[in-house]
Amino acid sequence: MLTQRTKVRRNPSRGRHDRPTIDAILDEALIAHVAWVHEGRPAVIPTLIARDGDDVLIHGSSASRTIRGLQHGLEACVEVTLVDGLVLARSAFHHSINYRSVVLYGTLRDVPDKERALEIFTEKLIPGRWEHVRWPTPQELKGTAALALRIEEGSAKIRTGPPADDEEDYALDTWAGVVPLTVRPLTPQPDPRLRPDIELPVHVRDLTL
Amino acid sequence: MLTQRTKVRRNPSRGRHDRPTIDAILDEALIAHVAWVHEGRPAVIPTLIARDGDDVLIHGSSASRTIRGLQHGLEACVEVTLVDGLVLARSAFHHSINYRSVVLYGTLRDVPDKERALEIFTEKLIPGRWEHVRWPTPQELKGTAALALRIEEGSAKIRTGPPADDEEDYALDTWAGVVPLTVRPLTPQPDPRLRPDIELPVHVRDLTL
Repeated sequence: MLTQRTKVRRNPSRGRHDRPTIDAILDEALIAHVAWVHEGRPAVIPTLIARDGDDVLIHGSSASRTIRGLQHGLEACVEVTLVDGLVLARSAFHHSINYRSVVLYGTLRDVPDKERALEIFTEKLIPGRWEHVRWPTPQELKGTAALALRIEEGSAKIRTGPPADDEEDYALDTWAGVVPLTVRPLTPQPDPRLRPDIELPVHVRDLTL
Repeated sequence: MLTQRTKVRRNPSRGRHDRPTIDAILDEALIAHVAWVHEGRPAVIPTLIARDGDDVLIHGSSASRTIRGLQHGLEACVEVTLVDGLVLARSAFHHSINYRSVVLYGTLRDVPDKERALEIFTEKLIPGRWEHVRWPTPQELKGTAALALRIEEGSAKIRTGPPADDEEDYALDTWAGVVPLTVRPLTPQPDPRLRPDIELPVHVRDLTL
């Protein structure tokens, strides 16, 4: 995992290279930021992510120019970031963010079993969903491309804990600490066209408890 | 703003090119994903973002290799994404995410007034903070680099609303709708070394009301 590219140079104490740490961040993140080089210039898009063992999966329309480019062996850099809190220091300079991020490098490859990929994405969005939905038709599978990146070259970076102020600043009158941030699901909004006899199922209710 | 690169090709009805829409997304996002090309290969990092009028600012250590590269006229692609909800359709295929994203292209330039940049970042993290903190020393300013990208070439992409199922699927027994997601600040955690006589100030309390 540790290569010239994945060595954490800035604040190296924040670097992590173990798979359990990397996997936990990938599993919590809904969205990844996939960068590639297009005609010599940088491009990056947000896309839903799901981990499948040693792979990170992304998917999209098989007609998408981006997906087609990435399908044909283009190198990618995949990044996810979870924001955990605002770090309010006594000095402007030491203000920061508590976060957990992962950066992975590699070449995406095509995933032949697209139905299984769609199952993994559906279950990532909301566990227990797959058994309740109408499964993909051959036509839908034809219109879908799924790509995988092996979790091999990459690293995580984590900042946690209180601000780190300069020693002399601890005497100042300024309040310092962390404001934690969390992503919270709110009350589910039924589709306006939902059949009135359909109740909120347990797998959706459980998400918002 | 509309160029070959910024034309929204996938789901073009989700594309927006007006500045008020783009600015509102940039202002709500804490973190941007900055992509560039390093020795022909793609790289992307998460970094704090703040808008200053027609510019998007990023900053970092002036010793950082990434920052130094971007300072010297490297092309960048800057992306931010806000996740607003899980879109639960009746079919697996039409599951989606409600989101607002912006992608900008351009070349970063150096920001000479680094103190002002640090003020903008501090106020972005938490409005009203700047007047309460110890301001940067010349040494801290020397150690900081601030970079700006002009908001010129770019676009926003937005998905809102309920799932869009195939007409025949509306008769299915499956619950469908949206689970909204929101980022919420939790109870502030005082620094363990906070002086016991310092109370929670209004600008921090206001954030979590």
